[in-house]
Amino acid sequence: MKTAFLGLGAIGTPMARHVAAKSSLTVWNRTAETAATFAAATGASAEPTPAAAATGAEVVLTCLPTSREVESLLDGPTGLLAGMAAGTLLIDCTSGDPQSSRRIAARLGERGIAFIDAPVSGGVSGAEAGTLTVMCGGDEVTFARARPVLEFFGRKIVLVGPTGAGDALKAVNNALLAVHIWSAAEGLAALAKAGVKPSAALDVINASSGRSNTSENLIPQRVVTRAFPQTFRLALLEKDVAIAAEFIRDQRVASPVIQQVAELFRLARHELGETADHVEAVRLVEEWSATVISD
Amino acid sequence: MKTAFLGLGAIGTPMARHVAAKSSLTVWNRTAETAATFAAATGASAEPTPAAAATGAEVVLTCLPTSREVESLLDGPTGLLAGMAAGTLLIDCTSGDPQSSRRIAARLGERGIAFIDAPVSGGVSGAEAGTLTVMCGGDEVTFARARPVLEFFGRKIVLVGPTGAGDALKAVNNALLAVHIWSAAEGLAALAKAGVKPSAALDVINASSGRSNTSENLIPQRVVTRAFPQTFRLALLEKDVAIAAEFIRDQRVASPVIQQVAELFRLARHELGETADHVEAVRLVEEWSATVISD
Amino acid sequence: MKTAFLGLGAIGTPMARHVAAKSSLTVWNRTAETAATFAAATGASAEPTPAAAATGAEVVLTCLPTSREVESLLDGPTGLLAGMAAGTLLIDCTSGDPQSSRRIAARLGERGIAFIDAPVSGGVSGAEAGTLTVMCGGDEVTFARARPVLEFFGRKIVLVGPTGAGDALKAVNNALLAVHIWSAAEGLAALAKAGVKPSAALDVINASSGRSNTSENLIPQRVVTRAFPQTFRLALLEKDVAIAAEFIRDQRVASPVIQQVAELFRLARHELGETADHVEAVRLVEEWSATVISD
Amino acid sequence: MKTAFLGLGAIGTPMARHVAAKSSLTVWNRTAETAATFAAATGASAEPTPAAAATGAEVVLTCLPTSREVESLLDGPTGLLAGMAAGTLLIDCTSGDPQSSRRIAARLGERGIAFIDAPVSGGVSGAEAGTLTVMCGGDEVTFARARPVLEFFGRKIVLVGPTGAGDALKAVNNALLAVHIWSAAEGLAALAKAGVKPSAALDVINASSGRSNTSENLIPQRVVTRAFPQTFRLALLEKDVAIAAEFIRDQRVASPVIQQVAELFRLARHELGETADHVEAVRLVEEWSATVISD
Repeated sequence: MKTAFLGLGAIGTPMARHVAAKSSLTVWNRTAETAATFAAATGASAEPTPAAAATGAEVVLTCLPTSREVESLLDGPTGLLAGMAAGTLLIDCTSGDPQSSRRIAARLGERGIAFIDAPVSGGVSGAEAGTLTVMCGGDEVTFARARPVLEFFGRKIVLVGPTGAGDALKAVNNALLAVHIWSAAEGLAALAKAGVKPSAALDVINASSGRSNTSENLIPQRVVTRAFPQTFRLALLEKDVAIAAEFIRDQRVASPVIQQVAELFRLARHELGETADHVEAVRLVEEWSATVISD
Repeated sequence: MKTAFLGLGAIGTPMARHVAAKSSLTVWNRTAETAATFAAATGASAEPTPAAAATGAEVVLTCLPTSREVESLLDGPTGLLAGMAAGTLLIDCTSGDPQSSRRIAARLGERGIAFIDAPVSGGVSGAEAGTLTVMCGGDEVTFARARPVLEFFGRKIVLVGPTGAGDALKAVNNALLAVHIWSAAEGLAALAKAGVKPSAALDVINASSGRSNTSENLIPQRVVTRAFPQTFRLALLEKDVAIAAEFIRDQRVASPVIQQVAELFRLARHELGETADHVEAVRLVEEWSATVISD
Repeated sequence: MKTAFLGLGAIGTPMARHVAAKSSLTVWNRTAETAATFAAATGASAEPTPAAAATGAEVVLTCLPTSREVESLLDGPTGLLAGMAAGTLLIDCTSGDPQSSRRIAARLGERGIAFIDAPVSGGVSGAEAGTLTVMCGGDEVTFARARPVLEFFGRKIVLVGPTGAGDALKAVNNALLAVHIWSAAEGLAALAKAGVKPSAALDVINASSGRSNTSENLIPQRVVTRAFPQTFRLALLEKDVAIAAEFIRDQRVASPVIQQVAELFRLARHELGETADHVEAVRLVEEWSATVISD
Repeated sequence: MKTAFLGLGAIGTPMARHVAAKSSLTVWNRTAETAATFAAATGASAEPTPAAAATGAEVVLTCLPTSREVESLLDGPTGLLAGMAAGTLLIDCTSGDPQSSRRIAARLGERGIAFIDAPVSGGVSGAEAGTLTVMCGGDEVTFARARPVLEFFGRKIVLVGPTGAGDALKAVNNALLAVHIWSAAEGLAALAKAGVKPSAALDVINASSGRSNTSENLIPQRVVTRAFPQTFRLALLEKDVAIAAEFIRDQRVASPVIQQVAELFRLARHELGETADHVEAVRLVEEWSATVISD
């Protein structure tokens, strides 16, 4: 099978490596050197434009920061639409937003090109191991076509609803992550000020009803240790929470908690900058309470 | 060892059963029949007043709805203080509030009686199995005295800080539970309205970063099935979130998320009443968005 | 001057009456009888379609529930674009949203038609008295053309910024109104429960720093008296707060208070229905606290 | 009449000046020089302790930062209780909290001393002009005794409810002030970023339904001008909002908006420090959105 992959970022690169191993792959990246390096290492071929990368491919995969970047690749003589033929398929693994995905699907549909939104979870390590969870939005026929390609790098691959549903679910998952981080920080900061060691508190919470992936993994491994590794940028999580917040409003669901956390991450992004890791949101709660969540 | 147990409620009764099996137990309960029935079944002796139950006991355990009930048992000719001798120990397993526990500890201390706050988690099933988690607030000497008794019904028994720290940690754990329930309901209600089946959404979230005890257990088993079993009253969770909210404020930690969830549970309690289960908070999110989180 | 007016609602009708008195007016309304009745009373002529109403008019005014309705009138053989000639002007007095207004302006601009968003404040009584405040978004040339028409019904007429700025300002004003109503209700409900008469509390607040139009006029005249007159539907205020919330997010301003009030009005609209007056939001605070803000 | 005044701060000093002009006044202040200077200027006598100041006074007035300071003056050989005789009256003009005032009233009552909480509004200028608003909590007999003294510096003097009601109302008023400041800042920051001049926006809002004392006076005079005069410390407003938030919770009124604003002012106090003026809360909204609310 001939495939193309656009967007060789932190997650995209290991995903594309799996695709390269199991199909005839052409790649494109905004920074051309990245594509050249990737091609040299994997035997894929690098092309200078989206159009050139897509030409001849049965399936094109995109993995970009936001839906805006995906949309910006579509048009013009070097754009994706200039390279993709009728009957081909675009799998968008971007953590996109549902409205944009529906708009993209509609534009592709006019040219007989199929579309599925297929954001992933599992992080860089999951991408490297080929064990990502892939949540898809689209129809069953398109999902059946996309599945063999998604199996190159995914383990749990689920069609969750119509176009945009994959984006929506990814955004909601990440919004819950953001809620869990922020609320755990509030509670643990107060406990720390009252003389309760964070590790002791976490030990109890993780044996109780308040536990979450955040309390079981993120806080003990990253906050209490002060390691704060850079694995997923806060700026990207902020974007996802904003997508979730807008999606939930579009569905007219009163959502005071998620809307508020969207605001808190907005200001955390402003305060902590574009390179901070998502777990560093905790630092803001710490700063505002003049304490540190550490033993 | 001679022990006394005051408060034979849903959790207290199975706890007291373990205590009865391993010590010479006297019990008291506001409704006397409950104590009589318990005594008949376990060989414990039932007494008509807190003072009578406490007389002669080395260790008195209390397990009541709130600290207010504990304080109300102390005074008067039939009160706990009329029965407890200097040198004895009061273990309060109530999900209490730190300020009241400090006040109780001070009053007992004036009479040479030790105090430890020791709220539990694990629910009725944990109480029956004797596998509760017990989070203690007090000094190390008192903790060492209390531990053998706590082992009658607890598996993980931890001293987490000074007097009131057990209450604070229990309240924070439950506040996180409340945050997780409410935010999951917001996200899943919107996904349901957008055509994503809750069970499919949960399947993905539980393989991703947004998972929690709530998404792994409570929502699939109780909400999606519409079972809503009565295991822990919303009114009690509301009380715990209010304790957490006040505790966090006392520590001067800016805590917009937990404060807000305290308000939401306050109004949920008003809307859903005193007998609703804690997970039924989800019903309010469903009602406000005219949807049901069910497949 | 030849003018057209589309949308004879509660505010639109008295506005159009002023326009009819000072120009040669053609009207259109979704319910044709309303237009016929208006025409009979004012000497304006009623037309069956937007296109017909707009034909020959130098200036077309629209006053509809939302921007969505304005956009839906543009297209097709009976739409506004089929009737408006190049060189004419569309003044949209709808409390619209900035994004839609920019989209409408762009579409009209392609045909040489000028556009200005010009939402009004002052209510039905201001419209009848011809003393409305009009907040305009657009360029100065268009504003200069629109002003003589706006003076038919407006007293304070201000150009506040580029296209959409009028909508944004109207939405922010109404969001502040919503914030003031909700927060005053919270405070007064608690005071009432504590034995402070609402009228005494308002008397003091209105001599102090916490006063607002809401505390000076709305609460004493409408809530304390339990009159709750129907002057401005809560559903419309909810729409405006939602517009403000989205606008503020688009500007990337962290806005926890207004976002939260947007959620509260969303659920108030669900609970109180489409016909409730905006001040009735107070009823929800009253219900949740089992009190009444009345002497 | 013999009077005493304790607490010669920014507001207390001009209030005491009126009392000195109309009665035989003894003063006490934590910093003794302030009392000496005041005495020299007014003919009052300065005493070294609360007990000494209160001895012989029929009416004692206190005006301190918080109720905590009032309580801390009561006990010990130099405390107020050592100086006040049965049958005298304590008027507490502190912006206190209702619970503390009830506690103080109970303690004084045991000794036959009457108490009324009587916080004021109107600022330094109102204190100087003798035109303060005084909101009183207590019974009618005590109010009748206090009124002639309160008339020395107050214009609107109202009994609003039982002991603590004055504090509660003052706190709610100031909470509304805080809500108005924060929400206006959110809206105006977004408008400024969208190209709407703050002064133009305020001009319209102040002719519309969203107006408040904040939009009419504070923002135009202090924010748009960047003057930010130091008239009322943010730390004190934060304390008042916290009192309101706790009072409202005690009344079991679901109050998401005021609770949230309490958190925002808590963090604003942490970020801006103890000397910032209350209106400087706007600076935080400005910082988080990288804009300035100025023309």
